[in-house]
Amino acid sequence: MYEVEVKVPAHLATVADRLADLGAELTGTVVQEDTYYDAPHRDFAETDEALRVRRETRADETTARMTYKGPLVDEESKTRAEVETGVDDGDDADSVFQNLGFDPVATVRKDRRFYSYDGYTITLDAVEGVGEHVEVETEVGAEADIDAAREGAYDVLRDLGLDPADQRRTSYLGMLLEDS
Amino acid sequence: MYEVEVKVPAHLATVADRLADLGAELTGTVVQEDTYYDAPHRDFAETDEALRVRRETRADETTARMTYKGPLVDEESKTRAEVETGVDDGDDADSVFQNLGFDPVATVRKDRRFYSYDGYTITLDAVEGVGEHVEVETEVGAEADIDAAREGAYDVLRDLGLDPADQRRTSYLGMLLEDS
Repeated sequence: MYEVEVKVPAHLATVADRLADLGAELTGTVVQEDTYYDAPHRDFAETDEALRVRRETRADETTARMTYKGPLVDEESKTRAEVETGVDDGDDADSVFQNLGFDPVATVRKDRRFYSYDGYTITLDAVEGVGEHVEVETEVGAEADIDAAREGAYDVLRDLGLDPADQRRTSYLGMLLEDS
Repeated sequence: MYEVEVKVPAHLATVADRLADLGAELTGTVVQEDTYYDAPHRDFAETDEALRVRRETRADETTARMTYKGPLVDEESKTRAEVETGVDDGDDADSVFQNLGFDPVATVRKDRRFYSYDGYTITLDAVEGVGEHVEVETEVGAEADIDAAREGAYDVLRDLGLDPADQRRTSYLGMLLEDS
């Protein structure tokens, strides 16, 4: 499974109005707190990998999961392999990784609103210390389908009055670390 | 809290008959599959740590959890730090660790039947590649009670027609690695 995702800075209130005009459906809201780790034996900044423990609150229910992200396989669309599973307790998962020598490097906190539109998930992100961005995202099963999926994501951005040329390839984590 | 545990090789069918004669109660059965990992940056055999992903099946319901075990902090009482959390999917947890460079070193599979008898938990373990063993176990609150509890466990072994002198102190993982 490949995740195809494009991201641009945006004024969220304006985009939300546009989504309402387009009849896009608000499918959920969530608060996410993502802790990223350094590896004791590799430089993740160099290998382009990531280890994350995410705590997520929806309607007062908090869940947690751990995720490994592999290096980019498609620079253009930020496509990478991802392995993830839910965990019963985010603090215990954090403690397992810290005991194994993985140190927390930064925590990204964001309010997200999800919309479904034209086969894509559109996410309006207000990110603490980073600012407002819109992500357009879908998943494809085969590497051969990545290009078409990315072009489709650009079309969605244009429908929202946004410019694909504004695309940011830096992660929120990267933006947070750049700004700090 | 101190865990007092003795383990001996045994013919499980014979012990099960003996337990029935003694009126001991079968309290549960479980199939456990424990995968242990090597670390990419530390020799766990040297640091006396362990990372484990356990899949457990009871009555057709499979659960999984990941566990970090720290080095012994007290030789006498076998006390070590342990951090554990349930995971939604054992295979995904395994994949996260393998992607991070932790290689599976061995998998211990065992069928366990638990009995309650005379204040002790008796576990009949059929361990793949290792053989059949019986564990007799209890917990005591004070260090001063450990000796009496161990003597009691030896009495239980004798009631089962087993010899305390056959006690094995090596873990099933250790036995599996010795035999391979």
